[in-house]
Amino acid sequence: MADPASPQSIIARKRDGHALGREEIAAFVEGAARGGWSDDQCAALLMAIFLRGLDSGETAALTELMMRSGAVADLRGIPGVKVDKHSTGGVGDKVSLVLAPLAAACGVCVPMMSGRGLGHTGGTLDKLEAIPGFRVGLGLDAYAAQLRRIGVAMIGQTGELAPADRRLYALRDATATVESIPLICASIMSKKLAEGIDALVLDVKFGRGAFMPEHARARELASALVTIGKAMGKPTRALLTSMDQPLGRAVGNAVEVVESIEALQGHGPADLMVVTLALGVHMLLLARVAADPAAARARLQRAIADGSALRKFRELVTAQGGDATVIDDCARLPQAPVARPIMAPVSGFVADVDPLAVARAAWRLGAGRAHAADAINPAVGITHLVKVGEPVSAGDRLCTVHAASEADLDGVRAGIAAAFRIEPGPARAVSLVDELIE
Amino acid sequence: MADPASPQSIIARKRDGHALGREEIAAFVEGAARGGWSDDQCAALLMAIFLRGLDSGETAALTELMMRSGAVADLRGIPGVKVDKHSTGGVGDKVSLVLAPLAAACGVCVPMMSGRGLGHTGGTLDKLEAIPGFRVGLGLDAYAAQLRRIGVAMIGQTGELAPADRRLYALRDATATVESIPLICASIMSKKLAEGIDALVLDVKFGRGAFMPEHARARELASALVTIGKAMGKPTRALLTSMDQPLGRAVGNAVEVVESIEALQGHGPADLMVVTLALGVHMLLLARVAADPAAARARLQRAIADGSALRKFRELVTAQGGDATVIDDCARLPQAPVARPIMAPVSGFVADVDPLAVARAAWRLGAGRAHAADAINPAVGITHLVKVGEPVSAGDRLCTVHAASEADLDGVRAGIAAAFRIEPGPARAVSLVDELIE
Repeated sequence: MADPASPQSIIARKRDGHALGREEIAAFVEGAARGGWSDDQCAALLMAIFLRGLDSGETAALTELMMRSGAVADLRGIPGVKVDKHSTGGVGDKVSLVLAPLAAACGVCVPMMSGRGLGHTGGTLDKLEAIPGFRVGLGLDAYAAQLRRIGVAMIGQTGELAPADRRLYALRDATATVESIPLICASIMSKKLAEGIDALVLDVKFGRGAFMPEHARARELASALVTIGKAMGKPTRALLTSMDQPLGRAVGNAVEVVESIEALQGHGPADLMVVTLALGVHMLLLARVAADPAAARARLQRAIADGSALRKFRELVTAQGGDATVIDDCARLPQAPVARPIMAPVSGFVADVDPLAVARAAWRLGAGRAHAADAINPAVGITHLVKVGEPVSAGDRLCTVHAASEADLDGVRAGIAAAFRIEPGPARAVSLVDELIE
Repeated sequence: MADPASPQSIIARKRDGHALGREEIAAFVEGAARGGWSDDQCAALLMAIFLRGLDSGETAALTELMMRSGAVADLRGIPGVKVDKHSTGGVGDKVSLVLAPLAAACGVCVPMMSGRGLGHTGGTLDKLEAIPGFRVGLGLDAYAAQLRRIGVAMIGQTGELAPADRRLYALRDATATVESIPLICASIMSKKLAEGIDALVLDVKFGRGAFMPEHARARELASALVTIGKAMGKPTRALLTSMDQPLGRAVGNAVEVVESIEALQGHGPADLMVVTLALGVHMLLLARVAADPAAARARLQRAIADGSALRKFRELVTAQGGDATVIDDCARLPQAPVARPIMAPVSGFVADVDPLAVARAAWRLGAGRAHAADAINPAVGITHLVKVGEPVSAGDRLCTVHAASEADLDGVRAGIAAAFRIEPGPARAVSLVDELIE
């Protein structure tokens, strides 16, 4: 008969709209982490949570219990304030690749654990792995040792950390229960807290290419994330940033590494640099390596100008087994055999570059995956994207498509061409960084 | 990216409150039956359906597609109108064991597929299997042949029938998504339609011991079931019957077989006979073997009085491999080693016999199961239950508990004693058969 601690009883209580107690949430997290709950039971509770919600107390308890479902990195012995940056994900979002070494070059200790791409947003790990030899699978000891030595590490979620989240994340992806603010909060924050951070800067994107397109929902998510971070005693700030066109001019894996290297060399696209610097300012402030925003910004710009950010990237790549010569010779990165420009059919001004259409094309070329186990092709993608507001003449390049074959290229040609809208007059400028939530 | 036919897209549409189209429901049923949908995906959609509902068109489509997910018995070549009876389940509900042979003895062809007990309600199959040798696992051919030969068969859901339901039923049980009217309708009616019935009589119970305790919800379920049956071209009627005390005086497996044999011998407890005859009347009317309710009732009573109903039960037991000598010597049925009466602590009138407390005690004795794979003990249970309204004196027997050991008996003694409430004055009589829905 109904045991009040049974999965069924706990699921039924949330199904019926009750708030779950800490012991009930603990039973769920424990069951998810150790297998006492079946996939279907986890999924049923996830859907009930999706539709019934969690209050702030339930969300905080879920986050903390998910964090404690596995190891928690202890970085207290390592000098410096540990500040991570996390993005909810966007098209062409290679900010982590630029910002982690940049902030580290400025004296922030940057413990960064990232995910792989799934669906339309690329993953930092996939991009890093486009560098031959780059290992993202460091254990917690190697991670801590590297942080102590060079002040930055970019790794994947290890098997030791937040095992409950790993299982629930995969289930949410399979069951259309991803876009739930309390579940997103618990997933992101449990991992970030388990990393051993002292403080956190969040890039919460809104717009068509964002995970959470609606501005109001993205703002709600940002507030919820900041609330939980603070409740856990970790200063947390979020920037709401626009994702209505791809960030930068490249979408893919190796091609985004190239653009990141260019950014660290001081030649990054304007929009990428605006977002990177805005987030970097808050990392430096939270790490107390700069006294005010202006000083922080100047410090970041100096680290690019003096080459120290690029040197830190080189150190990072080398430390994690990657071939750092790609930094000097991007041709050593995987190259797609077919590269063709897409031309503007008319003259005018770029009025729109639909990030989802670009992402879909990149995904179809093989840059992304439909299932977590799918392999990706690091070489393919899209480069030289025009930006909204730029003038073009008929026959000018709108972008270059890098494909594994002519057939693959033909398969995306119509889709990518449809991503661009060209109008006679210039578009109005939009602000990329919308609001700070703290 | 999001494929509109993917499980995720279909789940998301229901999650967001949209009505699903026939193709979407077909993809789900096919995925459930053939394994293309994972357990977690099925569970997520079940929870979304639980919380968002299905309209009548969706419910009818789900029912029909679940029916067609496997074989559909073709009984058209067999003479007689095929009428089944289905109960939503109650404590001590052995009506099927009495009514199937009784209606068959009156000329109704009774194709009855039943389930096993799970949770607090017993299962007809478990009760039948208390008869040594009784086989409930007939294939569709043997089932049809037996129906042609003796006009009645009582079997389990074969692997061929409604495989989607079998998987979804197990998932619903595991995920607290059982009590959803559209899901219940689709589950019951898909199986009943696959049996090859021409018409159906439903016993929809309400009250504490019912699967759907609230009268209004039970009535809603009855109406929904009748609507679907008719939409599928099968005349369907439902009786709402009360389940506020155990039906009859025995709860268990072998002990309910004994009580069923007594009922077929004309010595059944009054309440059991009221419900059995009320349902039987509608079976005979739907089978057109009686012209009106009074004639139907007289026909049923004659079949008990002249021994033909008991003979039909004997035929049934023999046909399915059971030891029919148990009918003449109930001591040949499994017997529990320990049997002890529970005594009334005070004199008065029985004001309540809590069906859930009795069911819980029977379950703890081993008569029921917590998981579908659990074994049950056919011998244990409770007999000689007093009925609401009966006078008792202090020291009189309230029931007899049949247990596998003294320790087991001690384990349920307090729980079973608490099931009874004795008051100084007589209780008001309640109507057992509440309403006909047709």
